[in-house]
Amino acid sequence: MSIQKPSIPKGTRDFGQKEMARRNYIFDTIRSVFATFGYSEIQTPAQENLSTLLGKYGEEGDKLLFRIQNSGEKAALAPEKGLRYDLTVPFARFVVQHQSEISMPFKRFQIQPVWRADRPQKGRYREFYQCDVDVIGSTSLLNELELVQMVDAVFRKLGVRVAVKINNRKVLTGFAEIAGAPDKVVDITVAIDKLDKIGMDKVVEEMAEKGVSASGIDVIREILSLGGSFREKFSSMKALFEGGSSSGIVSEEGLRGLAELEELFGLIDIAGVSSQVDLDLSLARGLNYYTGAIFEVKALDWEIGSICGGGRYDNLTGIFGLPGLSGVGISFGADRIYDVLTGLELFPPTLEQSTTLLFAVMGADELCYVIPIAAALRSKGISVEIYPEPSKLKKQFEYADRHNIPFISINGSNEIEAGSVNVKNLQSGEQKAFKASEIDEIAGFLR
Amino acid sequence: MSIQKPSIPKGTRDFGQKEMARRNYIFDTIRSVFATFGYSEIQTPAQENLSTLLGKYGEEGDKLLFRIQNSGEKAALAPEKGLRYDLTVPFARFVVQHQSEISMPFKRFQIQPVWRADRPQKGRYREFYQCDVDVIGSTSLLNELELVQMVDAVFRKLGVRVAVKINNRKVLTGFAEIAGAPDKVVDITVAIDKLDKIGMDKVVEEMAEKGVSASGIDVIREILSLGGSFREKFSSMKALFEGGSSSGIVSEEGLRGLAELEELFGLIDIAGVSSQVDLDLSLARGLNYYTGAIFEVKALDWEIGSICGGGRYDNLTGIFGLPGLSGVGISFGADRIYDVLTGLELFPPTLEQSTTLLFAVMGADELCYVIPIAAALRSKGISVEIYPEPSKLKKQFEYADRHNIPFISINGSNEIEAGSVNVKNLQSGEQKAFKASEIDEIAGFLR
Repeated sequence: MSIQKPSIPKGTRDFGQKEMARRNYIFDTIRSVFATFGYSEIQTPAQENLSTLLGKYGEEGDKLLFRIQNSGEKAALAPEKGLRYDLTVPFARFVVQHQSEISMPFKRFQIQPVWRADRPQKGRYREFYQCDVDVIGSTSLLNELELVQMVDAVFRKLGVRVAVKINNRKVLTGFAEIAGAPDKVVDITVAIDKLDKIGMDKVVEEMAEKGVSASGIDVIREILSLGGSFREKFSSMKALFEGGSSSGIVSEEGLRGLAELEELFGLIDIAGVSSQVDLDLSLARGLNYYTGAIFEVKALDWEIGSICGGGRYDNLTGIFGLPGLSGVGISFGADRIYDVLTGLELFPPTLEQSTTLLFAVMGADELCYVIPIAAALRSKGISVEIYPEPSKLKKQFEYADRHNIPFISINGSNEIEAGSVNVKNLQSGEQKAFKASEIDEIAGFLR
Repeated sequence: MSIQKPSIPKGTRDFGQKEMARRNYIFDTIRSVFATFGYSEIQTPAQENLSTLLGKYGEEGDKLLFRIQNSGEKAALAPEKGLRYDLTVPFARFVVQHQSEISMPFKRFQIQPVWRADRPQKGRYREFYQCDVDVIGSTSLLNELELVQMVDAVFRKLGVRVAVKINNRKVLTGFAEIAGAPDKVVDITVAIDKLDKIGMDKVVEEMAEKGVSASGIDVIREILSLGGSFREKFSSMKALFEGGSSSGIVSEEGLRGLAELEELFGLIDIAGVSSQVDLDLSLARGLNYYTGAIFEVKALDWEIGSICGGGRYDNLTGIFGLPGLSGVGISFGADRIYDVLTGLELFPPTLEQSTTLLFAVMGADELCYVIPIAAALRSKGISVEIYPEPSKLKKQFEYADRHNIPFISINGSNEIEAGSVNVKNLQSGEQKAFKASEIDEIAGFLR
């Protein structure tokens, strides 16, 4: 075997001990919140049949699928396979495949990596984790409320101040209807979605290019300039949908969307979430399959794109032969949340230390002396290391320092004779001697 | 899009909520034990460059690698890639690639899926999790002791009685030496490894076929028939390696292996593990790269292959250009441990219940009434669901039953007027009324 300089594929990452501790902190926080709302975890395989994946993500998505080469004698006969591209399509496949085993409403979350053969660039990877939470089989807006509550609880626990932005796909349909362009809802939605980035003039230009009439554009402009509180925006929109816009057109669909928003914001008031929650009429999200509420979450104190997004869909499982199931879900962007916590220095400093106490060792007798003491402390749940080879104390102190180990215990022949244990707090310098049998007392000093 | 009956690739699995709760219980138990010994987690990407993987698992292994098709314009230029086949080679690659960032001894564990294009059969999958714990950069036998202690602690926590079987690769080399066949150590090892399965006669036959002389076979037979305690086996082996076998040959390597075993068993005595620990002279493990201690763990009360295995290796990172690093590690077989816990009914029954309390809902007023109470209970860490649509109580009770939810709360206009909350323990039938503000009291009743 020739010696090779090792590397990993472009767009993929190793996670060392510090990154893993931080990533696990994020995922554990999210998991603990999901659990208090009765959501439980599932996992699906990394490989799906290619037929499950193809045609679900548009032409561009099909190109970005990682395909697996079939091997072995029967390679030509075996179904082609690809790597999971997101968690939504596998979830839909799971629900249909296991429909006889699961009961509705079905509340699940899933935290797994996905793979996309995208051109790697800053913040865009070919392997990254998604973290999706969905409930399927219930149309109640209580589900939308609970997603907002979960977002609120997760970011409160993480210490990140966020704004939750909410809109409704039916309201976007209403925009197109009262603009006299009911067939152009996707074009209008896509244009509006860019308002933040490209400004009103460019949005108007794009809609004109797509064939929205000048009077229609005036109506959209009227809508997007609405300001004020939820109540104020809501009343203005209601008047427009009831025929009060310059086109005079009534939109029943738009009014249904408004009614859903009114109910949801009412529930949010009752529940009393601590995050800022806004109605954002320009919020569209590119995805075409949302049919009701749409969500997006932004960090207030750190400049980055949205850190969560989602919405209600009415026919996710239809492509796999099970129509009529409505669901709503939200996806947490783990990599961006990681960047926000890093930027705002919100990771708890204790994540850096995995071990509480290091027993320094100068010889075989000392080693044998501390082994049972270390075992007893571990059985109390305390993380203990014994330095594995007798070596200079300086080296062992350096080890403690590099690994952020806050306590060290150095014991020589005197301690062995006396049956005692010395423990030193490396931060404060405080040092205490215990009897070797006083495990609870030592554990107390270490906590 | 045509409608398709959904399925997943052969040899892969979906994990539903019950399986995930059980799998997480196993992994969390293992993680918590690793943490008390100062081991921390890393992760590597699912895809590795094919050059990292090829030639590391033998010819057969190369065939079983899942290869990724390159796509896009520059497909022909990009390095070929394959899916992770185990966690050992990526670990070696990680250590070499990040050698400037990590300090020795480096204690890591890794819990991730691996993929093998094996023919699927009962208990053999194309995607399965491995759970490896290794320390590299230290030759101290304290590391071997700590692996045994970790095995002991994991299975004590899981409630599984196990036997830890230990041997030493140097002792196996000694066998070949005193059998006069020092060049046949691999053949002899492979034959001996099958003793349990095929019996002594077949082992003898296999060694003869591989060219071990009749007198050499007599020596091996002499060794494998040794019985008694560790002390007794140890003394007999020592005499044989010192020239007391029928060949009269002395094996220095065999004596070194014995000395290591003696030291390790001495440390195990001092540490006081509760599992049975045996010297097993027939334990060889197929793998060729072990150079010192070899481990295998078996469940005592459930018939299944080994549930953990590992050993010491001296040159894992040499293939990637970093020679001279000794390490030792062990791998936990998650699927088999799952089967043992299922077979012995050792999973805690509480794993089946994810939610503690269900608020039944009969109308919009009741819904609005319970939302803030549910929120307050969740903020105390209690898992609460609200039934999302007003429906017949029977249906809501069925939901509680199917999801093993132990408490239900039904509140109507009387409770709303009185500001009270009814909570019923569905197992005992006990029912209690609280003021809606008595969140701590309700939480206490639910615990």
